[in-house]
Amino acid sequence: MIMDKLREKVINKSPLCVGIDLREEHIPNCITKGHFDPEIHFVEYAKDIVDATLDVAACYKVQIACYEAFGLKGLKAYKEILDYIKSKGEYVIADIKRSDIGSTAELYAKAHFEGDFEADIITLNPFMGKDSISPYFKYFNESKGAFILAKTTNKGSKDFQDLLIDDMSLSNKVLNNIFKWSKELDEYKNFPSMGAVVGVNNLESIKSLKPFTDKLFLLIPGYGAQGAKIEDIKYLMGSKMNGVVNVSRGISGGLKEEDNYKDILKERATTFAKELKFNE
Amino acid sequence: MIMDKLREKVINKSPLCVGIDLREEHIPNCITKGHFDPEIHFVEYAKDIVDATLDVAACYKVQIACYEAFGLKGLKAYKEILDYIKSKGEYVIADIKRSDIGSTAELYAKAHFEGDFEADIITLNPFMGKDSISPYFKYFNESKGAFILAKTTNKGSKDFQDLLIDDMSLSNKVLNNIFKWSKELDEYKNFPSMGAVVGVNNLESIKSLKPFTDKLFLLIPGYGAQGAKIEDIKYLMGSKMNGVVNVSRGISGGLKEEDNYKDILKERATTFAKELKFNE
Repeated sequence: MIMDKLREKVINKSPLCVGIDLREEHIPNCITKGHFDPEIHFVEYAKDIVDATLDVAACYKVQIACYEAFGLKGLKAYKEILDYIKSKGEYVIADIKRSDIGSTAELYAKAHFEGDFEADIITLNPFMGKDSISPYFKYFNESKGAFILAKTTNKGSKDFQDLLIDDMSLSNKVLNNIFKWSKELDEYKNFPSMGAVVGVNNLESIKSLKPFTDKLFLLIPGYGAQGAKIEDIKYLMGSKMNGVVNVSRGISGGLKEEDNYKDILKERATTFAKELKFNE
Repeated sequence: MIMDKLREKVINKSPLCVGIDLREEHIPNCITKGHFDPEIHFVEYAKDIVDATLDVAACYKVQIACYEAFGLKGLKAYKEILDYIKSKGEYVIADIKRSDIGSTAELYAKAHFEGDFEADIITLNPFMGKDSISPYFKYFNESKGAFILAKTTNKGSKDFQDLLIDDMSLSNKVLNNIFKWSKELDEYKNFPSMGAVVGVNNLESIKSLKPFTDKLFLLIPGYGAQGAKIEDIKYLMGSKMNGVVNVSRGISGGLKEEDNYKDILKERATTFAKELKFNE
């Protein structure tokens, strides 16, 4: 359900997912005025980013670690950023990459699909297997969803994700299972509420993943700063437009000295959105 | 460093790691008096558990999801529980099972080795590979450590962890890598600061893991409620005593109606500790 709705946003606006993965060094000086307070300034800059990109962004991805790093104050900012995005009627992906056994996964589901940290979609790590993911399923009927890590953009993804099991990489096994588990659930129209995180920094790896990724809605990280190329994203999604493409630093980074940072945010997001609307 | 110090606690007290994985239904009525407040009552019961088990427990493991489920109030309780354990001079393992790319892992390291949520040891998920773990290495010199998930106790651990890659399970590959990465670091005396989480609910799986687990310090979950047997734990650790064994619900569960819950906590912990001191 949720992924079909998110795809509508992609078609109406663009596949751009704006990442709100803020660090102190990203906050313009004219906001902090020389004294950085995570509880105040993260929220202020995040609101500016959302306001500047609303017209072109399909959704927002918030990396919880940026805020968790500042303890309770940081997590208060995290909550307020999520609240602001939701108040604008936009979808928020909580990039939490949690993993745990069933009874604990139930608690993480409560933590991130309800209450202070309620998000629309979360990211999850599949290493512990199906019963570490299934506690999230019951929320899919309430229009929640999850992106499961299948192939990440970092160099270390080769250490385990690329290992071959019966001629199929671990990443492929994960994708295959996401689709299998979703079919059992039978809760979706076009794309299951369980999608996949698929990095595209290497064309070879995408080729073998393609038969699986075509059936799922994707979160594609790494465009811009992490080196994913537009041709690779085009190859992966084709005209199906079955994914959102995250850009974080490419939009919100490097604006420390800029007084007119709001205009630059808007300009950057518009440019990225145009590049990503390759179906038109 | 940290694992050698923790092993001293194991030898002086016992391999018992007391899990403080609290849920509302665990809190004795005489604490909540009919009105549960996570911010107050989680902390109160946790302090009672620590006080009752100090004499016999090697360390404490706190499952962050139990508190994250209650948002900001829950995480305030989490912080206070960690602070209390540290104030008693005892080691605290933060069961966070985080995973992310390098630059984000740096933020998680800051979140859980510094500030509000500072712990001695954390648990980590290896799915994203070496560069998702290496940002934690620099803390090892400050006597911090990590247990990396290798083989978990849940049924779903067969979905990916048991898959064979060149005749070696993914769990074995992970264990092998933990040891390899630790050798490169060369920061330890007997046991590397990077240990492994190894569940023992299946003797067959332990047999193949044993050549690897012998070189590492282990966090063994699942004793009691999750079904691990004392013989299996004995087989895994032998006389090396290279691990701590977690008991959570087996100590703190089922005491809702008990006014003398403090005595029962002490009694249960003492019994578990005795069973686990099989080296004597």
